[in-house]
Amino acid sequence: MSLLESPIVAPVATPTAATQTVLPPDVSAADFDAAIQAMKQAIGADNVHVDVETVGPYYDAFPVTDDPTDFAPSGVAFPGSTEEVQSIVRIANQYLIPLHAFSTGRNLGYGGSAPRTAGTLLLDLGRRMNQVLEINPKYGYALVEPGVSYYDLYNAIQEKGYPLWIDAPDLAWGSVVGNTMDRGLGYTPYGDHGMWKSGLEIVLPDGDVLRTGMGGLPGNNTWQLFPASYGPQPDNLFVQSNYGIVTKMGIQLMLAPPDALTFQITFDHESDLQAIIDIMLPLRINMAPLQNVPVLRNIFLDAAQVSKRTDWYDGDGPIPAEVVERMKKELNLGYWNFYGTCYGPRPVIDTYIGMIEEAFSRIPGAKFYTTETRPQSPDDRGAHTLHDRHKINTGIPTTEEANVFHWIPNAGHFFFSPISAPEGADALRQFEMVKKRADEFKKDYCAQFVIGLREMHHISLLLYDTTDSAHRSEALNLVRTLIDEAAAVGYGEYRSHNILNDQIAATYSWNDNAQRRFNERIKDALDPNGILNPGKAGIWPARLRGRGL
Amino acid sequence: MSLLESPIVAPVATPTAATQTVLPPDVSAADFDAAIQAMKQAIGADNVHVDVETVGPYYDAFPVTDDPTDFAPSGVAFPGSTEEVQSIVRIANQYLIPLHAFSTGRNLGYGGSAPRTAGTLLLDLGRRMNQVLEINPKYGYALVEPGVSYYDLYNAIQEKGYPLWIDAPDLAWGSVVGNTMDRGLGYTPYGDHGMWKSGLEIVLPDGDVLRTGMGGLPGNNTWQLFPASYGPQPDNLFVQSNYGIVTKMGIQLMLAPPDALTFQITFDHESDLQAIIDIMLPLRINMAPLQNVPVLRNIFLDAAQVSKRTDWYDGDGPIPAEVVERMKKELNLGYWNFYGTCYGPRPVIDTYIGMIEEAFSRIPGAKFYTTETRPQSPDDRGAHTLHDRHKINTGIPTTEEANVFHWIPNAGHFFFSPISAPEGADALRQFEMVKKRADEFKKDYCAQFVIGLREMHHISLLLYDTTDSAHRSEALNLVRTLIDEAAAVGYGEYRSHNILNDQIAATYSWNDNAQRRFNERIKDALDPNGILNPGKAGIWPARLRGRGL
Repeated sequence: MSLLESPIVAPVATPTAATQTVLPPDVSAADFDAAIQAMKQAIGADNVHVDVETVGPYYDAFPVTDDPTDFAPSGVAFPGSTEEVQSIVRIANQYLIPLHAFSTGRNLGYGGSAPRTAGTLLLDLGRRMNQVLEINPKYGYALVEPGVSYYDLYNAIQEKGYPLWIDAPDLAWGSVVGNTMDRGLGYTPYGDHGMWKSGLEIVLPDGDVLRTGMGGLPGNNTWQLFPASYGPQPDNLFVQSNYGIVTKMGIQLMLAPPDALTFQITFDHESDLQAIIDIMLPLRINMAPLQNVPVLRNIFLDAAQVSKRTDWYDGDGPIPAEVVERMKKELNLGYWNFYGTCYGPRPVIDTYIGMIEEAFSRIPGAKFYTTETRPQSPDDRGAHTLHDRHKINTGIPTTEEANVFHWIPNAGHFFFSPISAPEGADALRQFEMVKKRADEFKKDYCAQFVIGLREMHHISLLLYDTTDSAHRSEALNLVRTLIDEAAAVGYGEYRSHNILNDQIAATYSWNDNAQRRFNERIKDALDPNGILNPGKAGIWPARLRGRGL
Repeated sequence: MSLLESPIVAPVATPTAATQTVLPPDVSAADFDAAIQAMKQAIGADNVHVDVETVGPYYDAFPVTDDPTDFAPSGVAFPGSTEEVQSIVRIANQYLIPLHAFSTGRNLGYGGSAPRTAGTLLLDLGRRMNQVLEINPKYGYALVEPGVSYYDLYNAIQEKGYPLWIDAPDLAWGSVVGNTMDRGLGYTPYGDHGMWKSGLEIVLPDGDVLRTGMGGLPGNNTWQLFPASYGPQPDNLFVQSNYGIVTKMGIQLMLAPPDALTFQITFDHESDLQAIIDIMLPLRINMAPLQNVPVLRNIFLDAAQVSKRTDWYDGDGPIPAEVVERMKKELNLGYWNFYGTCYGPRPVIDTYIGMIEEAFSRIPGAKFYTTETRPQSPDDRGAHTLHDRHKINTGIPTTEEANVFHWIPNAGHFFFSPISAPEGADALRQFEMVKKRADEFKKDYCAQFVIGLREMHHISLLLYDTTDSAHRSEALNLVRTLIDEAAAVGYGEYRSHNILNDQIAATYSWNDNAQRRFNERIKDALDPNGILNPGKAGIWPARLRGRGL
């Protein structure tokens, strides 16, 4: 499913496009034209475009700078097969045209479909490479092309009537391949998407094709069953990197368990955070009784699902405490709200639910609900997220969380996503650090702690008005400040917006930036002409090194 | 723990050492001596040896060829720190001395501590780099040096009294780092060792040091909690490869669950295999009710734990059917015997055990036991493996499985380990394929199917008399035949003996051996002088390419 064909209402922001073609670095207009002509020859004139009307919608929907050319693509191509991707890559090598391949072009809050380097040619794989190639109900896996969204995969499974679950992120309009290869997360027991991929087909920067794992063995029936093969396993080298273009991916799927029950626990006070996380850890670390990836959300995030900011408060700056109290009362929510799901035969669920309720009831004021005890109802807006999380946690795609884009006018957001230990003290320190700065910068902070197994992703959603230049630069300054403050105390980000790549990569500075130096060595070996996505994740090819921010 | 200091009785075979130093390819005696002198200078004369007495015990304990120089090391060094490893690597680059680093030097059936390329200098990391650097009881992980065996880690945990489980392979005398980095397996829910490692420190072939994951961020407390960082994640590039020397590794540890119960199910007939696997798959694929990595073993493997072959049969060639019947009766075992463990609060265990018993009782003649219903007793030799598996499945190291080395005199073994789908038809086809050839070659075949989640490792233990030249070459020919026959129908191996590396790598032939070509590109980028373990996993450096078998 391509960005442009999405049946889902896109976020409200309208990207601002450059008015003429932005050329790649060090490429003349004549060479660029020759490359485009060669690509049209290779995959059809209808599938390569440089006009503003076609290219405009691929700009970042949440622009963060005033100059629309900062992250401007030069054009867009729609390859229809692995072979066509290979052709484009070979031509790009000849003319030194940088390429940025993406799947559905979402990646909201991290740069959308915009490239890191201005003048990069986009490969919208979603337009024509969007087939579910196989679904195996017995072994529980699918083999998909990049353009397959979580909705597409879900629908394909439902059409066959297979008892398989997908594991979708909060917004299911994204690509399965795109999310997984950018280190995305979901919320079922299969929430660590990278762990459940099995088998990649990758076009390398020189146009060669690699199949990883058992895909190397002709005649195998295990490509999607066993991700390794013999010798090193390079799959994760292609996660969040610029070393290749994934054209097929296997994803393992959970079989629907006998039953599932989702719970919501509400906690009154900001200061409960530390106790919540400390009680949570021993319940989660053994994958039971907390069997899935639970989330802890502050009230702004839940309120934004069912209301606008102006419904509660008209002023600028932080929302006052008495307004927060009114929100809690009217929505029957806590300042913190914790969601998770138990799975299995009913006796197992009942055992686990009992253990969870008992553990958290130690926090004064905690209230425990399940999808059975707090039914969905128009009169109970605070039940909205409970039932939406139940869907997400049981393999049903939704895009309800996009309601957050209506919290303020023209809302865009930055994600600031540090990793920390699943420790109350760490959670509290991060919360206070971000909230203090967000208050200073007058940005609402929708907090979410997503608990893997031994680590938390603190996904901070920092909202700003994308049409307001001052708002944009404040948001950017806020995140830049947070990245440095977090790194100074040992918290690192796992994913970022294009504009922050170099800053974040630089925080991984151990042994004279050994990680960056290693990444560059691999880059130069696989992509000597520096074609693929220069600057992605702070990895620049030799010919453009030093162009980082 | 070094090979030479092992408190465990080593296998009976005595390796045959070459009588004089075997030089590395294309290195003169003078250059070799100069290199050894430089290394003695760097890490101390006591820590670098080329004499036959010191080097001899590092030869493969299960030799497979007649010429002891085929896989002969030239010497052995005992570096004591990451810095000393770096020094050795830099000197090796200067003199083009190939290096093979290992941890405890086990790897029985896959070549032991012997190098792929004759004349390689061994780095026995286990001798001096054998510290458990950290155990974290709250987050459940350890940070270990290469020489830490599963016993060492277990003992260190017990000394602290922490409720943490290790996940050991069948023989716990091996190294945690060595096993994990060679794609080893265990049997608890943490059985996929590669999945549970978090954070590597690696000396690269040029002497530089990389820390992966959050280890790149100074001041972090998440190196062992979150294995990725920002950008590509190269950890699995160092699994079963020759791209670096791992000097520290984080391994996540399961917290002891409230309770555990191990079961044994015996099945009468060879032909039950297909039904066993087909019933098993839906119970396993969702990680419940079969929560751990279960194993299905034929009677020879269980009988070899408590008896010798001659106790049953004196003849050459396949053991006759009536003898097998006698074994089954006397040991109260089936031809196939299935082992697994359920974990959790007792109500969860009881639910799961009930589901498992009910499912398998559909096979006529199946008998179901647990560690509670079939107690350990000298009068019930058939209960031996049940109780040994219970130990292994609950984090207690054992080496009982080494009893198999007494099944025949001077027993060594080849592992033939193809991967297949967890499908009855595949299991039966593999079993018949291997048994037919083993009968022809007059080798006993101890069969074991180890079921991951969506794949089976069929670990075929092919026994031979290591002191008998004809036996050795028969065993080698048998395995070479099996590899080709398996590849022809789409089964590939995940691990192999040195002598088989090139044959197996060649079976991964898709797109003109794209995997091998990719591996070589990475090799040349990271190790331009071809220092580390030339030929490991079929990966040869540019200067020695074409030397494969």
